[in-house]
Amino acid sequence: SSFEYVKSYELDDTLLPNTWIVVRIDGKCFHKFAEHHNFTKPNDLRALNLMNYAAYQVMKDTHDICVAFGQSDEYSFIFNKNTAFYKRRGAKLLTTINSKFSSSYVFYWRKFFGDEILQYPPCFDGRIVLYPSAENVIDYLKWRQADVHINNLYNTAFWALVLQGNLSPGQAEKRLCGTVSADKNELLFKEFNINYNKEKEIFKRGTILLKLHVQLDVKKKTVASIIDIHEDMLKEKFWLKYENLLEPTSKKVVHYNGPITDILNDQILNREKTKCSPINIS
Amino acid sequence: SSFEYVKSYELDDTLLPNTWIVVRIDGKCFHKFAEHHNFTKPNDLRALNLMNYAAYQVMKDTHDICVAFGQSDEYSFIFNKNTAFYKRRGAKLLTTINSKFSSSYVFYWRKFFGDEILQYPPCFDGRIVLYPSAENVIDYLKWRQADVHINNLYNTAFWALVLQGNLSPGQAEKRLCGTVSADKNELLFKEFNINYNKEKEIFKRGTILLKLHVQLDVKKKTVASIIDIHEDMLKEKFWLKYENLLEPTSKKVVHYNGPITDILNDQILNREKTKCSPINIS
Amino acid sequence: SSFEYVKSYELDDTLLPNTWIVVRIDGKCFHKFAEHHNFTKPNDLRALNLMNYAAYQVMKDTHDICVAFGQSDEYSFIFNKNTAFYKRRGAKLLTTINSKFSSSYVFYWRKFFGDEILQYPPCFDGRIVLYPSAENVIDYLKWRQADVHINNLYNTAFWALVLQGNLSPGQAEKRLCGTVSADKNELLFKEFNINYNKEKEIFKRGTILLKLHVQLDVKKKTVASIIDIHEDMLKEKFWLKYENLLEPTSKKVVHYNGPITDILNDQILNREKTKCSPINIS
Amino acid sequence: SSFEYVKSYELDDTLLPNTWIVVRIDGKCFHKFAEHHNFTKPNDLRALNLMNYAAYQVMKDTHDICVAFGQSDEYSFIFNKNTAFYKRRGAKLLTTINSKFSSSYVFYWRKFFGDEILQYPPCFDGRIVLYPSAENVIDYLKWRQADVHINNLYNTAFWALVLQGNLSPGQAEKRLCGTVSADKNELLFKEFNINYNKEKEIFKRGTILLKLHVQLDVKKKTVASIIDIHEDMLKEKFWLKYENLLEPTSKKVVHYNGPITDILNDQILNREKTKCSPINIS
Ligand SMILES: Nc1nc2c(ncn2[C@H]2C[C@H](O)[C@@H](COP(=O)(O)OP(=O)(O)OP(=O)(O)O)O2)c(=O)[nH]1
Ligand SMILES: Nc1nc2c(ncn2[C@H]2C[C@H](O)[C@@H](COP(=O)(O)OP(=O)(O)OP(=O)(O)O)O2)c(=O)[nH]1
Ligand SMILES: Nc1nc2c(ncn2[C@H]2C[C@H](O)[C@@H](COP(=O)(O)OP(=O)(O)OP(=O)(O)O)O2)c(=O)[nH]1
Ligand SMILES: Nc1nc2c(ncn2[C@H]2C[C@H](O)[C@@H](COP(=O)(O)OP(=O)(O)OP(=O)(O)O)O2)c(=O)[nH]1
Ligand SMILES: O=P(O)(O)OP(=O)(O)OP(=O)(O)O
Ligand SMILES: O=P(O)(O)OP(=O)(O)OP(=O)(O)O
Ligand SMILES: O=P(O)(O)OP(=O)(O)OP(=O)(O)O
Ligand SMILES: O=P(O)(O)OP(=O)(O)OP(=O)(O)O
Ligand SMILES: [Mg+2]
Ligand SMILES: [Mg+2]
Ligand SMILES: [Mg+2]
Ligand SMILES: [Mg+2]
Ligand SMILES: [Mg+2]
Ligand SMILES: [Mg+2]
Ligand SMILES: [Mg+2]
Ligand SMILES: [Mg+2]
Ligand SMILES: [Mg+2]
Ligand SMILES: [Mg+2]
Ligand SMILES: [Mg+2]
Ligand SMILES: [Mg+2]
Repeated sequence: SSFEYVKSYELDDTLLPNTWIVVRIDGKCFHKFAEHHNFTKPNDLRALNLMNYAAYQVMKDTHDICVAFGQSDEYSFIFNKNTAFYKRRGAKLLTTINSKFSSSYVFYWRKFFGDEILQYPPCFDGRIVLYPSAENVIDYLKWRQADVHINNLYNTAFWALVLQGNLSPGQAEKRLCGTVSADKNELLFKEFNINYNKEKEIFKRGTILLKLHVQLDVKKKTVASIIDIHEDMLKEKFWLKYENLLEPTSKKVVHYNGPITDILNDQILNREKTKCSPINIS
Repeated sequence: SSFEYVKSYELDDTLLPNTWIVVRIDGKCFHKFAEHHNFTKPNDLRALNLMNYAAYQVMKDTHDICVAFGQSDEYSFIFNKNTAFYKRRGAKLLTTINSKFSSSYVFYWRKFFGDEILQYPPCFDGRIVLYPSAENVIDYLKWRQADVHINNLYNTAFWALVLQGNLSPGQAEKRLCGTVSADKNELLFKEFNINYNKEKEIFKRGTILLKLHVQLDVKKKTVASIIDIHEDMLKEKFWLKYENLLEPTSKKVVHYNGPITDILNDQILNREKTKCSPINIS
Repeated sequence: SSFEYVKSYELDDTLLPNTWIVVRIDGKCFHKFAEHHNFTKPNDLRALNLMNYAAYQVMKDTHDICVAFGQSDEYSFIFNKNTAFYKRRGAKLLTTINSKFSSSYVFYWRKFFGDEILQYPPCFDGRIVLYPSAENVIDYLKWRQADVHINNLYNTAFWALVLQGNLSPGQAEKRLCGTVSADKNELLFKEFNINYNKEKEIFKRGTILLKLHVQLDVKKKTVASIIDIHEDMLKEKFWLKYENLLEPTSKKVVHYNGPITDILNDQILNREKTKCSPINIS
Repeated sequence: SSFEYVKSYELDDTLLPNTWIVVRIDGKCFHKFAEHHNFTKPNDLRALNLMNYAAYQVMKDTHDICVAFGQSDEYSFIFNKNTAFYKRRGAKLLTTINSKFSSSYVFYWRKFFGDEILQYPPCFDGRIVLYPSAENVIDYLKWRQADVHINNLYNTAFWALVLQGNLSPGQAEKRLCGTVSADKNELLFKEFNINYNKEKEIFKRGTILLKLHVQLDVKKKTVASIIDIHEDMLKEKFWLKYENLLEPTSKKVVHYNGPITDILNDQILNREKTKCSPINIS
C-alpha cells in the first residue's frame, strides 16, 4: 500500500560486536508494590524466590545468557560477548528479556505467594549496557553484589530498630546516620542479638544464576544445567572456581551438593519427563 | 566502591524532541501460542479482547499516550509529540510499556479466557519508531489498519476452505494463490454463504483506543475517558470526526452511543467507587 | 581475507527521515587563530568574507542544502527535510561538509587575506542537529542571528573602550558589566560617536546564503543562483519575502539589486564561461 | 532568548568507554582528483608523502592517537582505548581529525607538489569504528595493509600493460581477469622486467605512523617522536618489535636508523628551535 513507507522510519539499532551485553531490569515503584503485597521487611523470601524463578525462565529460553544476578527488585542478564541473538538488535534483545520476565513474574506468583493475592500487574523497566572487557563485566557483577551488602546491612538494622526497637522510621534513620558497617554489626548484635554474619546468604549476597555442567550425584551423568547460588563474587576464589563463566559454553564440571532449589527441581522433573536425556540448555 | 565506574558505561538514549513516538509490541511466536491455547480460527474474540484490555491498562497509566491501535498479536502506542515521559529516555519508555502490557496479559487472562488455562508465560517484542509529522503518524495508523483487512480477508477465506470446505492447508493456500480481494469476497459468498462485509468490525479493522471527552448519556456529565472503537481510519471522515487526535489533550466532546465494553465498564465502575468524580485520565 | 570481518563493526548511522538536518561547524580556538592572523577587532571583513566564500563552495556542491547561515567562526548548513544525500548517513554528511569547508578555507585564504600569510592549517569542529518542524528550523536561524547581535554589540563597545578609550581589557569588561543593549548603544554614541545602527549589516546580522531564482537585471534571464545577504530573520517580513525557503526548490523569483559580491561574481563568471547557459545549481 | 530551546535538540553522542576508536578518512572522488593533478600511475610519491605529512599534523596535535595507517587516498587514526579526548564525543573527535587533515592537505600541497597547482579544494569523508579488543585493532590494521598489497600488485600490472605494453585499459583489465598473485608477479617480471619485490615499500605496504621513544643516534638523547615506517604488519615479528603499540604511552625505546623523512626532519628542526629540549609529543 501507499503507507508502507512508514516502515522505513525504523532505524537500525545493532549493538557493537564482540562486547558483553548486560540487560538489567528493575521493578517500577516496588517500594509501594512491596507494601501493597505485605512483603516481609527487610527481606521477603517469597519475593526473592519469585524473582529468581522468573529470571530462570528467561535464562532457560535464551541460550546466550551466561550469567544472571538478582537482588531486591532487579535482575541483570549477561550475554556472552559473541552472541548473535536477534542479530544483536538492541530493542529485540531488551524487550524480549523484559517481557518474558514480566509475564513470568505474574504467571508464577501463586507458586511462591500462595494465598497472598496479586493486586495488579507489576511493571519492570529495562536497559542495555555494553562492556568491552571481561574485567568490566566482573566489576559490574561485583558492583551489583556490593550494593546488596550495603543495602541489606542498613535495612536489617533499620527494620530491627523499627519493628523490634519501636523507633519511628525517622528516628531509626537518625540513629543510623553516619554509622559505618562495624557500627551496624555491633548495634544488631548488642541490641537485638542478631549476628549479621548468620543472616541468610540470599539476603546478604543476592542470587547468581549460572549455566554449568553439574554433577548432582554419583549415579547420574553430568548434565548441563542452571544453578542458583549465593556465593561471594567479591572474593577472587569465586572467579577461580567458576572460570570461563563469561564464555559461551563453560565446559567446567562442578560437583554440586547444595540444596535442591525450585530451579533445580524444575530441571530434574523435566529431565525425568523426557526420559533421562540430559538437560539440554543449549 | 571502586566498581561504580561501570555505571558510566550507560549511554544516553534520549529521543529527538518534537517527534511522535510510536511503541509497537508484537507477540513472539504467537502462531504456536494460538495453537497451544486453542484460539478460534481465524479470529479469537477472547484473545483480541484480552489484547485490548492489556493495552487499556497501559494507556490508563501513561498520560501521554494519545492513541493506541491493536490487531492480531500486536499493539501500537502513540505518544503525543511533546511528551516528556521519562525525559524521553528511549529504553525507559519502551520497556515500561512492554512490561506493563506483558504482565497485564497474564494478569487478565482468566477474565477473558475463563477455563482455558494459560500454559506458559507469553513474550512480546517491542520497538520504538519516531515520526516527525502528523501525516506520518496518520499514514502509520492507516498502514497497520490496512494490514488487518488484507490478512483478515485472506484468513477468513483460508479457514473457510479448511474448516468448512475440508481442504488441506496446502490446498487452501493453492486455491487462494493469485486471487484479489474481489475473488475472495465472491468465494466466501458463493461457496460458504459468508458476506464478508457483515463480519465483525473488530475482525476487519482492529481496535482503536482513544482518549476523549465522552458523553455517555444525557444525565451524566461529560467525562474524559478511553474508548475502544473499530472505525475505518482509511476514510477521511474518521480524521474529521476525531480531529486533534494526535494532540496532547483533545478537547473535543464526543457523544458515544456504542456498547459498554469491558474497557468502558471498568471506567464506570471506578468512577462510581470514587463517588462520581469524573474519570481523571490526565 | 580473514580480517575483513572488522568491516562489520561499522554500524548504521542513518538519520531519521522527513527531518531537517542542520550541520553546524565552528572554528577551533579561533580566539587564538584571530590573534595569530591579525584579525581586525571586533570584526574582520576579510575573515567573514572568507568564511562566506568557503560556505558558498560547500553549498554549490551540495544540491540539497537550501539555506546556510554564518557568523564569527561558525557556519550552519540546512538540508531540506527530504534529502537523500548519502542516503542520510550521518557521518558522511557531516564529514564531507566539514572537510570541504576546511580545505576551501585554506584554498581561498589568499583571495581574501592577500599578503597576510596563513600560519598553520585551521581546524573546524562539526555537529549534526535534527529538527522535525519548519518552525524549529526558523527558530534555529533566529537563535544564531540573535547571537550575532548580542555578541557584536558587546564586542563593538568592548573594543571601542580598549582601542579608542585606552581601557585595559579588564577595565572594559568591568565597565560593560550589567549594561543592557540601550546602555551600550548610548555609550558608543556619546563616548565614541559611533551610531551602532549604521554599523555594517554583515557585522550586525551575519550572512545568509540562499538558493533562489534571481533576476540580476532586465536584459538577462532569470537564473537560479546562490546569493549572500544580511537581512533580519527576526522580522516576520523576511519569512514572507523568502517563502518556501526551507523547501527543496523554491520557485520564487526574486529581483536582486544588491552588490555584486565575490559569490555572485563567481557565478556570473562561470555562466559566461559556459556561454550564458543558466547557472544550474540543482 | 526564546529560541534557545533549539540547542536542546543536540543529542548526546558519547562513544562507549574502554574501546579503541578508529577514525578513517578517505578522499572523495580521488579517481578524478588524481587525474586532474597528473598523479603518477599507479603510485604518486608526492601524493603519498603529502597524505603522510597531513596525517602527521593531525597526530602531532592529538595526544591520544597511538597509531595511524595510510594508503592511497585514505588514512586511519587509532585512539588508545581509554582516551578522554573531547569526553569521547563522537562528532567532535570525527570532525576535528577530518578537518585538520583536510586543511593540512591544502596547506602543505606546495611543499610536496611544487609547481603542480592545486586546482580546487579536495574533500575527505570520515567515519568512526569502535573495536573492543586489541586483537580487533590488529586485524583492522592487517586488513587495511592487506588491501594495499592486493590493489598495488593489480595496479602495477595494469599500468605496466597500459603504459608500457600499449594495451587499452579494457584490454589490460581482460588480461588480468582471473589471475592470481603469482601470475601477476610473473607477468611483471617476464614482460616488463619488473621485480615486484623490489618495488618501493611505501607502495607495497602503505605508511605506519608510530609514537615511540626513538634514539636517532648515539650522541643525542632518546626522544619521544613520531616515525613513518613501511613495515609488514601481517608478520608477527612486527607486533613483537613494537609491543604496547596500542597502549597510551609505549615506553619501549627503539633505535631508529632509517632515513630522515620530512616528518622526522620537522621534529628535529622544532627541537633545535626550542633549544634541544626533547620533542614533547604528549
Ligand atoms: N519489604 C520489602 N521491600 C522490598 C523487598 N525487595 C524490594 N523491596 C522494595 C523496597 C525498595 O525500596 C524497592 C527497590 O528499590 P528501588 O530503588 O528499585 O525503588 P522503587 O522500585 O521503589 O522505584 P523505581 O521505580 O525503581 O525508581 O523495592 C523485600 O524483600 N521486602
Ligand atoms: N487462530 C488465531 N491465531 C491468531 C490470532 N491472532 C493472532 N494469531 C496468530 C496467527 C499469526 O500467525 C500470529 C501473528 O503473526 P506474527 O507475524 O506476529 O507471527 P508470530 O507471532 O508467529 O511470529 P513472530 O515471533 O512475531 O515473528 O498470531 C487469532 O485470533 N486466532
Ligand atoms: N578579532 C576577531 N576575532 C574574531 C572574529 N571572528 C571570530 N573571532 C574570534 C573571537 C572569538 O572569541 C572566536 C569565536 O568564538 P568561539 O566561541 O567559537 O571560541 P573559540 O573558537 O576560541 O573556541 P572553540 O574552540 O570554538 O571552543 O573567534 C573577527 O572577525 N575578529
Ligand atoms: N594515479 C594515482 N591515483 C591514485 C593514487 N592514489 C589514489 N589514487 C586514486 C585512484 C583510486 O581510484 C582512488 C582511490 O580509490 P577510492 O576507492 O577511494 O575511490 P574514489 O576516491 O575515486 O571514490 P570515493 O569517493 O572514495 O568513493 O584514488 C596514486 O598514487 N596515483
Ligand atoms: O540503579 P539505577 O541504574 O536504576 O539508577 P537510578 O538511580 O534508579 O536511575 P534510573 O533508573 O533513572 O536510570
Ligand atoms: O511486522 P514487523 O515490523 O514485526 O516486521 P517483521 O517482518 O516481523 O520483522 P522484525 O520483527 O524482525 O522487525
Ligand atoms: O556554541 P556551541 O554549540 O559550540 O556550544 P559550546 O558551548 O561551544 O559547546 P560545545 O562546542 O562543547 O558543544
Ligand atoms: O572502503 P570503504 O569503507 O570506504 O567502503 P566503501 O565501499 O567505499 O563504502 P562507503 O564509503 O559507502 O562506506
Ligand atoms: Mg532506576
Ligand atoms: Mg525499582
Ligand atoms: Mg531496585
Ligand atoms: Mg516481527
Ligand atoms: Mg508475533
Ligand atoms: Mg504480529
Ligand atoms: Mg563549541
Ligand atoms: Mg570557535
Ligand atoms: Mg564560534
Ligand atoms: Mg568509501
Ligand atoms: Mg576515495
Ligand atoms: Mg580510498
